[in-house]
Amino acid sequence: MTKLKVQILKKDSSYPILIERGLLGRLDEIKEFEGYSQIGILSDHNIPDLFLDKVYKSLKKINSKVTKIIITPGETNKNLNTINEIYQKLSDISFDRKSLLVCLGGGVVGDMGGFVASTYMRGIDLVQIPTTLLAHVDSSVGGKTGFDFDNKKNLIGTFYQPKMVIIDLMVLTTLPRREFLQGYAEVLKYALICDKDFWEFLKENNNILINPKHPEFFDKVRQVIYKCCQIKSDIVTRDEEEKGGERKLLNFGHTYGHAIESYSLNTDNPLFHGEAVAIGMLYSARISKEAGLSDLEIDEIKAVIESYELPIEFNFGTNSNLSDINKKLDKLMRNDKKNINGKISWILLKKIGSAKLKQ
Amino acid sequence: MTKLKVQILKKDSSYPILIERGLLGRLDEIKEFEGYSQIGILSDHNIPDLFLDKVYKSLKKINSKVTKIIITPGETNKNLNTINEIYQKLSDISFDRKSLLVCLGGGVVGDMGGFVASTYMRGIDLVQIPTTLLAHVDSSVGGKTGFDFDNKKNLIGTFYQPKMVIIDLMVLTTLPRREFLQGYAEVLKYALICDKDFWEFLKENNNILINPKHPEFFDKVRQVIYKCCQIKSDIVTRDEEEKGGERKLLNFGHTYGHAIESYSLNTDNPLFHGEAVAIGMLYSARISKEAGLSDLEIDEIKAVIESYELPIEFNFGTNSNLSDINKKLDKLMRNDKKNINGKISWILLKKIGSAKLKQ
Repeated sequence: MTKLKVQILKKDSSYPILIERGLLGRLDEIKEFEGYSQIGILSDHNIPDLFLDKVYKSLKKINSKVTKIIITPGETNKNLNTINEIYQKLSDISFDRKSLLVCLGGGVVGDMGGFVASTYMRGIDLVQIPTTLLAHVDSSVGGKTGFDFDNKKNLIGTFYQPKMVIIDLMVLTTLPRREFLQGYAEVLKYALICDKDFWEFLKENNNILINPKHPEFFDKVRQVIYKCCQIKSDIVTRDEEEKGGERKLLNFGHTYGHAIESYSLNTDNPLFHGEAVAIGMLYSARISKEAGLSDLEIDEIKAVIESYELPIEFNFGTNSNLSDINKKLDKLMRNDKKNINGKISWILLKKIGSAKLKQ
Repeated sequence: MTKLKVQILKKDSSYPILIERGLLGRLDEIKEFEGYSQIGILSDHNIPDLFLDKVYKSLKKINSKVTKIIITPGETNKNLNTINEIYQKLSDISFDRKSLLVCLGGGVVGDMGGFVASTYMRGIDLVQIPTTLLAHVDSSVGGKTGFDFDNKKNLIGTFYQPKMVIIDLMVLTTLPRREFLQGYAEVLKYALICDKDFWEFLKENNNILINPKHPEFFDKVRQVIYKCCQIKSDIVTRDEEEKGGERKLLNFGHTYGHAIESYSLNTDNPLFHGEAVAIGMLYSARISKEAGLSDLEIDEIKAVIESYELPIEFNFGTNSNLSDINKKLDKLMRNDKKNINGKISWILLKKIGSAKLKQ
């Protein structure tokens, strides 16, 4: 089993990330699940019954009180109503301070479950079992929880570290293709902002990494997930609550990405988060010339993004008024909660493998 | 100005408590209020206009964007709906990460405002200006925030430290009598659990302390508030997130107190929190004989509680079925979120000035 120990600055908040095939059905072998008064499994209707059953049955072997809490999937339900619903359910089953909440799902389940765990009785134990590649590389480390409010993404949230993260690589084989591939946008991001060697690895192994049936797939993808968790862990440990600037580098591609994502949701062609980040990364790469990025590197970035079957631009349609669209995107970027006093913050690349905050 | 520095274990979370008469009108002289993109003042309709105006005007001198956010007062409004309302208001006025939330009010405003500050954009700066004696001695230190859910007191909440606490002693002169006096229940609690000298001080000065018109009132009450904040700070620093047992000692009188408080709310004679704690303390003192407390000490505790014009028992009425009532109280005590696996936790006195957790 590949085990990464994430050490966060705050005392008592380091935790292990376990990466292996077949973990979901063997949770009873993991000692961290022992000793709880009861366990709740938060999931959504999109998670295959097979996964939920494995988790439920293996936990049932070591705790007599295991309850499934199933919410409606999707970003549109990532709101205070759903949070209310989860609180109510936990209260109904008399969750107490010695109870454990397990989140089985993608980013939406993890973010909302994390928020609930951080606030129920001022904080109960939390285990994250992310089921998408995007969640594996993006949400496993960092302790960000939250939900959308007033059409603003993750406006409400907390920083809260789980006790453990469990990554069962098998879940990647059942993901819908677009859902699977969007995870690579965040993977490429890590390489671009701080690791040229990792970038080369991703360039060389793209054919294996996008093909879950390839015999080397599990070996390569485990290396990728491990590397991403390690990079993020290093950055987050140095800047746990986003006080310094370093954590902001993780936002590469997200300024334009978030805007185009929001914009696309009101069109016939809604983007997945990772797809929007892919478009945002190329956008940021292009304006990174002022920071030193070469045309050759920009072309390379474009080619690699495309080799992971990710989009590099949004199709606004032939009849669109581009000036109007740009105004809308500009407004969306100004609304980003990362801005201070309405000033948009950009992350630029000095070269592949090195980023900086534009001042 | 009396200034107490509260040092909390976690890095960067120490903060000053300022105690003085007339501070509300002079906030512009305090450097900690400078440099924010905007300031929101959260308060409720019960706070005298005079106080709110002083705070508003003095902050207006140093920040052009100051907004009043006024909520409906009372424990019955300490719920998710009100939290939603505050979030919405902050979103409406484009609060950002460099904005400051100031809570002006009693425990309800402080607890809910603290929760909002801890979760809005994953945490914004917070200044507490408590306006009741109870809030001065109980909520100024500890960083507990929260609201009621599903009829359970503070079921949802966070630990979040303010940047500063401001105590203007003038607010005590306008408090309704019962509201004022209930604060002394928590004061007496601090003395009983860990400070015999403080207990003697409270015994000797009761006449001055319950009379805001007495010439020595402000001097004595400042000493009392300072002492309580100091005691709580010492305990909390050693046990910030209630992991150890020491912080539980602060719960003396609260096990029975919370139950009788909840019970009373459905009668014609609802108790204030402090009044319920007073009743709970005598109840706990009586069962503290097994821990070593003498009959003489129990009598003394009873007399001192009464000298602060606080109740020592609840009037159930002559026609009440005491067996039924006891069942209800027992059930309420078992619902306390401090319990683990439904086992009630009691704090007992070994003697006046020394407490322990009953195992």
